[in-house]
Amino acid sequence: MHTLEKLAHHVDGRVIGDAQCLIDSVATLANARTGQIGFLSNKTYINQVRATQASAVILEEEYARYCSANAIVVKNAYAAYAKIADLLNPAVRMPAERHGTAVIAATAQVKATATIGPYAVIEAGVVIEDGVVIGPHCIIGRNCFIGEDSNLVANVTICHSTRIGKRALIHPSVVIGADGFGQAYDADHWIKVPQLGNVVIGDDVEIGAGTTIDRGSIDDTVIEDGVKMDNLIQIGHNARIGAHTVIAALAGVAGSTQIGKHCLIGGCAGIAGHLKVADGVTITGMSFIAKDIEHAGSYSSGMPAEESQHWHRLYVRFKQLDELARRIKALEKKE
Amino acid sequence: MHTLEKLAHHVDGRVIGDAQCLIDSVATLANARTGQIGFLSNKTYINQVRATQASAVILEEEYARYCSANAIVVKNAYAAYAKIADLLNPAVRMPAERHGTAVIAATAQVKATATIGPYAVIEAGVVIEDGVVIGPHCIIGRNCFIGEDSNLVANVTICHSTRIGKRALIHPSVVIGADGFGQAYDADHWIKVPQLGNVVIGDDVEIGAGTTIDRGSIDDTVIEDGVKMDNLIQIGHNARIGAHTVIAALAGVAGSTQIGKHCLIGGCAGIAGHLKVADGVTITGMSFIAKDIEHAGSYSSGMPAEESQHWHRLYVRFKQLDELARRIKALEKKE
Amino acid sequence: MHTLEKLAHHVDGRVIGDAQCLIDSVATLANARTGQIGFLSNKTYINQVRATQASAVILEEEYARYCSANAIVVKNAYAAYAKIADLLNPAVRMPAERHGTAVIAATAQVKATATIGPYAVIEAGVVIEDGVVIGPHCIIGRNCFIGEDSNLVANVTICHSTRIGKRALIHPSVVIGADGFGQAYDADHWIKVPQLGNVVIGDDVEIGAGTTIDRGSIDDTVIEDGVKMDNLIQIGHNARIGAHTVIAALAGVAGSTQIGKHCLIGGCAGIAGHLKVADGVTITGMSFIAKDIEHAGSYSSGMPAEESQHWHRLYVRFKQLDELARRIKALEKKE
Repeated sequence: MHTLEKLAHHVDGRVIGDAQCLIDSVATLANARTGQIGFLSNKTYINQVRATQASAVILEEEYARYCSANAIVVKNAYAAYAKIADLLNPAVRMPAERHGTAVIAATAQVKATATIGPYAVIEAGVVIEDGVVIGPHCIIGRNCFIGEDSNLVANVTICHSTRIGKRALIHPSVVIGADGFGQAYDADHWIKVPQLGNVVIGDDVEIGAGTTIDRGSIDDTVIEDGVKMDNLIQIGHNARIGAHTVIAALAGVAGSTQIGKHCLIGGCAGIAGHLKVADGVTITGMSFIAKDIEHAGSYSSGMPAEESQHWHRLYVRFKQLDELARRIKALEKKE
Repeated sequence: MHTLEKLAHHVDGRVIGDAQCLIDSVATLANARTGQIGFLSNKTYINQVRATQASAVILEEEYARYCSANAIVVKNAYAAYAKIADLLNPAVRMPAERHGTAVIAATAQVKATATIGPYAVIEAGVVIEDGVVIGPHCIIGRNCFIGEDSNLVANVTICHSTRIGKRALIHPSVVIGADGFGQAYDADHWIKVPQLGNVVIGDDVEIGAGTTIDRGSIDDTVIEDGVKMDNLIQIGHNARIGAHTVIAALAGVAGSTQIGKHCLIGGCAGIAGHLKVADGVTITGMSFIAKDIEHAGSYSSGMPAEESQHWHRLYVRFKQLDELARRIKALEKKE
Repeated sequence: MHTLEKLAHHVDGRVIGDAQCLIDSVATLANARTGQIGFLSNKTYINQVRATQASAVILEEEYARYCSANAIVVKNAYAAYAKIADLLNPAVRMPAERHGTAVIAATAQVKATATIGPYAVIEAGVVIEDGVVIGPHCIIGRNCFIGEDSNLVANVTICHSTRIGKRALIHPSVVIGADGFGQAYDADHWIKVPQLGNVVIGDDVEIGAGTTIDRGSIDDTVIEDGVKMDNLIQIGHNARIGAHTVIAALAGVAGSTQIGKHCLIGGCAGIAGHLKVADGVTITGMSFIAKDIEHAGSYSSGMPAEESQHWHRLYVRFKQLDELARRIKALEKKE
């Protein structure tokens, strides 16, 4: 429990109303009760700020006039909310522990402050730094390095020689360092191209459940600092994801493609191989990137849905486009 | 082995032919032999009903005249088939067992009739109800609740405080309750938004292999009764999936979106965040939903493939659409 | 370390330059140093062949003139590279071992030359042939068969009665043989259709991380010899994937669809159910296949992205296509 004044100070904000008001937890504006704080960062929800039962609301200057509750006024309400939610819900740090069922190779170096959960497997030559948490059922292949304070939640598989930086947060069923998809056609069948590179992951990276990041074929696959990935994303071999880029669920980045820094990649987007995407590029959901993107900006090819019969009629017209264009040309000639 | 009469009675059907005919198993019409029963629910396969070696066929009235074998005539052949296949292949119920390798916290409450497989991990405060099967390598995080007769097949990860109803069937590599994807941009990098909500799953829900359902950021992510999900689906934080909705593989529902009841969502469909989709909506495969759908009906945006050279020509025309429209306007002015 | 002469002999190639030059490893043309060999198989990288510090380059005749280093000239540079990389990086074959923590049913038959890793679970009636490697945390359900020299890397779940051929390579978090997605609508809710078929996988199949292959509903799901699959792919029940077909990441093949032999399926492609795709078909990335493909060739429907504002204008025009077509018709009538 903290005073509104203290919370405001924590986020460089200004209090409107009762600075001594006590806040015990966060809530949505719609469901909040006395003692809770909500936030407004999306104007769709302005009506909720008017009606909320929250004791206080985190918001930006332009919305202050809609709020009858106490408020903390900040420049970036969502970031301020994140910090206040974190303050009110401190992560519970368990004492370091090595579960008796963990299989830890004799040559692995595990710092005393690291926690190793039940049924974890730590292979030969692994280095696990201070404060790391290896959750239940994680497998850390030989010669991997896991940097300070990284947290592998559960059931994560890290294949050999992968290097993970500090403060990584890796969710269940993630696979890092499986073989890249290298197949060479040899007369009448495919032969495997050995995948000899590794995966190198920077600091402060989050990786969502079920995501797969393949090892490089010769050089490494690289995820730079501060990259945040959602669930069920595929990163192909030798891809490079630039620092502070965010990728939403079910997107795929094919092999050898380089994504710039501070990019936003929407859900279900597909990015072909061997491309370069500049810094500061936004790719909206379900877009298909088939060539280099040289300039910052927003790029799209998702086709929003229509009622199915209408859609089918449009699609039939689309297939007539060549003919329609010829007919326009014919009309122009007759002028 | 049952008589055709008994099977017909089981599904409120009417026998045509030999009611005492003995049936031992189900088969496809194409591969059936004497003693087997097949079904016809898709008229594409009418020729197979004519030629089948099955002893009997489950079908609807309108197709009875094509069938020279014995038949069970019902209103809904596929549902009747499901019930008969279930009767002929009763699930083998193993006696309840706790494998000696399972790690079960002292404060977990596991009913005596529940089965816990090898290497399962059941954390503190978990409640596991009667008849539940927790397969090998499943992880049940602290304070989860697993309702009666639910079956977690194998290698399922349920993160803390998730609530699962009765008779759930959850396939391998599913992850429920991992952190939602909440990132706030703070000057030059992303900070994590704490994910404080849970996942609440109703009764009679099936979840396919590799699917991920994220926990809510403040309120809960909710999967209502009778929802059926295929493999590799992503459900974002705070989404709500209405009762008896079916979702096919590789579809994604982004955060805070509410899907109605009795919807059908096709494979590879992408549904953006913060939307509302009405009850009774069908979304066909590979469609992209970018705004609310207010009325029941079918919606599409999947573009069926053409021969690649033709497709590329159409795409070039598509990119000229603005120009084509201007040229039509110019022609109209000259009239 | 081998002489260039020996490497050339290994791939039926011809040396240009110093046949006695010693090669210790492979490298990319961009990063190679003395003692390393690179390859050129994509003319985008011709400048790299000019500038490389590699001691030798594997290339095809037409590019030989660009190369000032030693070279091995072959018909298929990528396949030759794969073979040379394999020769220079021989797979380390560990002595067969059964980890003490593996849970192996009394009725399972595991050949003495097979390796079983930590926390593997091998259920009743399983047969594991010579030279198989079952990695840590793999689960092999009852009555499965795993053919000679197959390698299940780690954390793979194989459900009961699956049959896997020789030399399979299966990456982490793969799930084979989970129930297909069979749901029958019964008045007001869905009932499960029992999934009674199995999965049968041929020889020399590779399956990428997180991929799911469902068991058949009545007959089997079949993956023929030499199929190579990337990560996070969904194969529905009763699908058949023809021999030597390659599928890239995040693609989905819905139930009962038959894909021919020697097909190439691009990333994020979606193939609807109950279709037939001929041999030798290429489906480019993000395409949607909604009807049978009867002839070999290349098929597409991926829409490459444009700058978002431009895209939205094109999309608006697309939705006017019906009206544009009517206006053209009206103009034609006035002629």
